[in-house]
Amino acid sequence: MQNIRLEITYDGTRYSGFQIQENGATIQGELERALAVLYKQKIRITGAGRTDAGVHARGQVANYYAPFQIPTQRLPEALKSLLPEEIVITGAADAAGDFHARFDAKGKIYTYTLDRAPYPQVMIRRFSHHFPDPLDLALMNEAARVLEGEHDFKAFQAKGSSVKDTVRNLRKVEIEDMPAEKLTRLTFYGDGFLYRMVRLLTGSLLRVGQGRLHKEDILLTLSGETSESAGPTASPRGLCLEKVIY
Amino acid sequence: MQNIRLEITYDGTRYSGFQIQENGATIQGELERALAVLYKQKIRITGAGRTDAGVHARGQVANYYAPFQIPTQRLPEALKSLLPEEIVITGAADAAGDFHARFDAKGKIYTYTLDRAPYPQVMIRRFSHHFPDPLDLALMNEAARVLEGEHDFKAFQAKGSSVKDTVRNLRKVEIEDMPAEKLTRLTFYGDGFLYRMVRLLTGSLLRVGQGRLHKEDILLTLSGETSESAGPTASPRGLCLEKVIY
Repeated sequence: MQNIRLEITYDGTRYSGFQIQENGATIQGELERALAVLYKQKIRITGAGRTDAGVHARGQVANYYAPFQIPTQRLPEALKSLLPEEIVITGAADAAGDFHARFDAKGKIYTYTLDRAPYPQVMIRRFSHHFPDPLDLALMNEAARVLEGEHDFKAFQAKGSSVKDTVRNLRKVEIEDMPAEKLTRLTFYGDGFLYRMVRLLTGSLLRVGQGRLHKEDILLTLSGETSESAGPTASPRGLCLEKVIY
Repeated sequence: MQNIRLEITYDGTRYSGFQIQENGATIQGELERALAVLYKQKIRITGAGRTDAGVHARGQVANYYAPFQIPTQRLPEALKSLLPEEIVITGAADAAGDFHARFDAKGKIYTYTLDRAPYPQVMIRRFSHHFPDPLDLALMNEAARVLEGEHDFKAFQAKGSSVKDTVRNLRKVEIEDMPAEKLTRLTFYGDGFLYRMVRLLTGSLLRVGQGRLHKEDILLTLSGETSESAGPTASPRGLCLEKVIY
């Protein structure tokens, strides 16, 4: 069977995350529903990564095995009428037979967008966290340098996570100020991320920017020398999975 | 009584337009409901211009007479918790006693945003009209030059309009290509606009860009020498009232 790779972009506002679940609409659920109409049978897709409820994606990747041939370049258009407006297929390609969207992912890029206008900018409210308070970006950048690299990020995951290996390589954290757009954007490049890790990193960096937390505290949290956990968990609306790297 | 001037921005997607009406949620209705909570009595507001169902605003202006004093600079924050997320007050000021948001308006600026990506960009889908087909912007610019100036725009209004004087001065039409963002933006500067005029102008300019209409046809429509009406009416989602000029 042909292994098909999809590039997917979505507005996650109304969804209970990527991964299919019993209750609540999910991105995976909507995709599988649309594919079932197209192929007239149940199709199971594999996503590169789970995104939480309310989190968005510009470059999510998924793959599935097609039970019969539909010209691959026609898939985005064919799926368009079968999907809700918030989910758009931006690319489809024939993949190698053993391509696996999750296991083959070498890294991911996430952005977190802060709306810095005095009052929320309505046109971007679904995709940003309104944060008008002053932020010391120099302090945030110093803390970002502490976070970069290979560390045990066990303090930077949702409580109750059962993952055994919590060491991850956070390759780079960029903090970009966009005064013309009244935005500040954080970009996280990593080989992989723990559950809620980006939102916990963002929450910690915001505390640093407010002067309520210091880079030394971050060091202690990373080294496991304090029982203080990281965070708080920043709101999902500002988070977007930009790209999956293979 | 103090005359208060508000600057308002809204995502009009879910609303039946600015002007209050019996059925359907409106921007004016939401604003008056919020002000009634604040002042504990009915408040009637005057908007600078009506926007249609689904049309947005970055710089709508309205005024009302306050029955008692609430510090004006606190109004945006006080109204924030009383308004839906899609409607944000971005400014409040004490106005002259005779200031009238509609009658005193000297001009308006509207933008119409086209999403030119092959597949819709989900993050801007509420604020753009997806138009991936090729457009000849040079032809559109030539037609824009024909439209600019003082003309009888009676062919460029919604059918059944009862306005007597249909002469308007369309000061400038700018067509801006933004390839990095995969957008094309039309900006209309005028002293006033007829009902649906911007959407009809946009619809005509898109036909010109597709080579289906020529600037000579626009001239004929403007001069009233043809019974052909302008248009089609472009979708409301791309339209935004950017600024009211006083």
